[in-house]
Amino acid sequence: MAELLSSSCSSTISTRIKPHLKPFNQCLTSFSIMVASNNSKPPFGRLFLQQKPRKSSVVVHAAAVSTSKETSVQTSSSDPFKPRVMVIGGDGYCGWATALHLSNKGYEVAIVDSLVRRLFDHQLGLDSLTPISSIQNRVQRWKSVTGKNIQLYIGDICDFEFLSETFKSFEPDAVVHFGEQRSAPYSMIDRSRAVYTQQNNVIGTLNVLFAIKEFREQCHLVKLGTMGEYGTPNIDIEEGYITITHNGRTDTLPYPKQASSFYHLSKVHDSHNIAFTCKAWGIRATDLNQGVVYGVRTDETAMHEELYNRFDYDGIFGTALNRFCVQAAVGHPLTVYGKGGQTRGFLDIRDTVQCVELAIANPAKPGEFRVFNQFTEQFSVNQLAELVTKAAEKLGLDVKTTNVPNPRVEAEEHYYNCKNTKLVDLGLRPHFLSDSLLDSLLNFAIQYKDRVDTKQIMPSVSWKKIGVKTKTVTA
Amino acid sequence: MAELLSSSCSSTISTRIKPHLKPFNQCLTSFSIMVASNNSKPPFGRLFLQQKPRKSSVVVHAAAVSTSKETSVQTSSSDPFKPRVMVIGGDGYCGWATALHLSNKGYEVAIVDSLVRRLFDHQLGLDSLTPISSIQNRVQRWKSVTGKNIQLYIGDICDFEFLSETFKSFEPDAVVHFGEQRSAPYSMIDRSRAVYTQQNNVIGTLNVLFAIKEFREQCHLVKLGTMGEYGTPNIDIEEGYITITHNGRTDTLPYPKQASSFYHLSKVHDSHNIAFTCKAWGIRATDLNQGVVYGVRTDETAMHEELYNRFDYDGIFGTALNRFCVQAAVGHPLTVYGKGGQTRGFLDIRDTVQCVELAIANPAKPGEFRVFNQFTEQFSVNQLAELVTKAAEKLGLDVKTTNVPNPRVEAEEHYYNCKNTKLVDLGLRPHFLSDSLLDSLLNFAIQYKDRVDTKQIMPSVSWKKIGVKTKTVTA
Repeated sequence: MAELLSSSCSSTISTRIKPHLKPFNQCLTSFSIMVASNNSKPPFGRLFLQQKPRKSSVVVHAAAVSTSKETSVQTSSSDPFKPRVMVIGGDGYCGWATALHLSNKGYEVAIVDSLVRRLFDHQLGLDSLTPISSIQNRVQRWKSVTGKNIQLYIGDICDFEFLSETFKSFEPDAVVHFGEQRSAPYSMIDRSRAVYTQQNNVIGTLNVLFAIKEFREQCHLVKLGTMGEYGTPNIDIEEGYITITHNGRTDTLPYPKQASSFYHLSKVHDSHNIAFTCKAWGIRATDLNQGVVYGVRTDETAMHEELYNRFDYDGIFGTALNRFCVQAAVGHPLTVYGKGGQTRGFLDIRDTVQCVELAIANPAKPGEFRVFNQFTEQFSVNQLAELVTKAAEKLGLDVKTTNVPNPRVEAEEHYYNCKNTKLVDLGLRPHFLSDSLLDSLLNFAIQYKDRVDTKQIMPSVSWKKIGVKTKTVTA
Repeated sequence: MAELLSSSCSSTISTRIKPHLKPFNQCLTSFSIMVASNNSKPPFGRLFLQQKPRKSSVVVHAAAVSTSKETSVQTSSSDPFKPRVMVIGGDGYCGWATALHLSNKGYEVAIVDSLVRRLFDHQLGLDSLTPISSIQNRVQRWKSVTGKNIQLYIGDICDFEFLSETFKSFEPDAVVHFGEQRSAPYSMIDRSRAVYTQQNNVIGTLNVLFAIKEFREQCHLVKLGTMGEYGTPNIDIEEGYITITHNGRTDTLPYPKQASSFYHLSKVHDSHNIAFTCKAWGIRATDLNQGVVYGVRTDETAMHEELYNRFDYDGIFGTALNRFCVQAAVGHPLTVYGKGGQTRGFLDIRDTVQCVELAIANPAKPGEFRVFNQFTEQFSVNQLAELVTKAAEKLGLDVKTTNVPNPRVEAEEHYYNCKNTKLVDLGLRPHFLSDSLLDSLLNFAIQYKDRVDTKQIMPSVSWKKIGVKTKTVTA
């Protein structure tokens, strides 16, 4: 671990509850910022899931949203009215791309975010490869480029008073929940980060479930899970459920979970909690068990430099393919952890946004806990390294690969066969990993290579060495 | 809900984190009370799991512990040295009985407890049927009756600084972890209790796992889970794992979980977290998925009135059989929830203490996550009501049964067949539910019938009506 917390933060971290967030909360949770100029909440979106008769004013607003340029995702009906979508974690890598995509498609969008992900960068001495604008500038730029409003609520969903206000103010028809600490290595830095990750993710999601029950019971929860919930069993991985015949009897049960970090475990906990509330309260929920996301550009983030997405390449937040491209760009060996036979599901970020829209456009039924495996292709780490090496060599880069000791506890050679047909059945048209995408990613990395801090590339967090002492700055 | 929180507590409850515990913590977590007069920590127990050579002083201490009167549970070796056992939650219903039993058997015992369970009684206006002494008087009385010391650490395991001190001071070879909010209805009172239950249980257990890793890596964790983690699948319930053949391949995987309250879910989360740390860190753990416990007397609690165990009969903490006996004693109809076909595993509290001792005496291997289903018999609620009715009528009591609307969301008619052979294989000799036990329980209830508050008997918490507003005193 090169840099972790700055020493000025360590006193905060020693407090027990939500260690890295507390003073931040105290500043931000008591108000919400309504950046969008249109606060009149046009009623068309709300009708999507409501049973009340529409008002006559609907048609006017409907005409206003028909300016959306792309209509690749088909809704389940011919209804042109789009739901009001709250994107929790809308300032993050997947959340930002999703918020813009939905806004571009005519959905009324609000971003809810505590911005704590930006604080983690400060504390750990990390930075996105791409320079990213403030969330306030981002939504203002989006407005100036497209004419579309995104409402902005800054605060922590673990603060139920704040979350309640966002629900009462925005009245969402769908909530897309990216608002969790999403790095496995982060959750394995030390005890306080492990506890923070589970507390933040589990309680935040519980609060969202209670908010839906209390304020918007027809609201559809689209929750980001992870393929990592399943682990690497020696049988095919189904989508959420498996039919088991045992001692002459048969039942369809939740697929067994074998997560392998405190982060992945927090998603397992969420899945169980959500499933219960669907059954007990009639919540309608879709759990998107997402694979590893790669890429950086979507149609929307490419519209303006101030809309660019973050791109993480470091050992904490960077994931395999994106990190390999940066390594190739700066002449750093590609770091394969262990034997490299670890196989996972992957998808392009353009498919992340497409999948979320498909889930929203085809909502779960009341009481239904629906699970989609959200990835398009399987690769082993070694296969990814080979693909990046070939693409980089075409650009004249000299690429080496090094097998570093695996900081994680995971099988390095294993069976892996996951089903992923449900989103395709809804209309997903995948962007498979191609030479042109790799070429584009590599050129992107080369463009920003001067911003790379090579000290951040190597894995710095060990699954086995995690201790109880809070890690502060170590070098 | 008749009475819940007193109004003077409501301001505390509105804080987000550990709402019912905070001021209590602030008073208690900064010190530990060493009640036992012998603080010299005789080393014999510690040798049980240690690899260091024994000191010559061991023999003397070993002789001292051989005064234990009963030796029904056989250890896996002929070693007379018993491990040092930390009983977290040792002031509660199962924890107190277990702590005394282990102490009586010659184990060196420490109780770790925040006493928050007693606070819940105050806040909810509840009380044990039996008058119970303070924990300080309890351990002093135990010393005066038996000559045996039980060390006492008062504090909250969610406070890692406190927990660390208990580990460094007591140096446990085994930790029995009862220290969780253990009522399903309590977890369904309101949002703040739901959040409290998951936060308290999950983070407390994470802290225990970190403490073992950091301070006592050979320490065996004996964790109380619940049979409720499994739900009521339409296939046989195995002990923790199930072998699945699917599409021509086979693997043994964690048994799928379908918990049905925020409390039961917290135990599911614990199980997943513990399984991961066994794999990643080599923790040795036994998860005791316990059924519904009934009874009140054990050999040890019966020794003196100040050693009596608590006996809950109310709608929040009272469980089926114990509650029925109190209802029969006071002429209240037996309250069967819904159709009464709900079937569960049950066990006598004398078997709880026996099972825990068996688990300690036969520890899991390093890295092993072992799951035992801890119950001795299955009954439906209707069967229990019939058994209590027959036994009560023999005592001349006039007993009626009433089917009240089921406050829970659960199947009322279902298949249920659970395996429970592993503890029997280790030597469990069950106390099956008998006429004499029912007779004794009923007479016990009659003895204390003047202490019964009949307002507390009916179910007061609804799984479907739970809301976000914190429940304070309502009547």
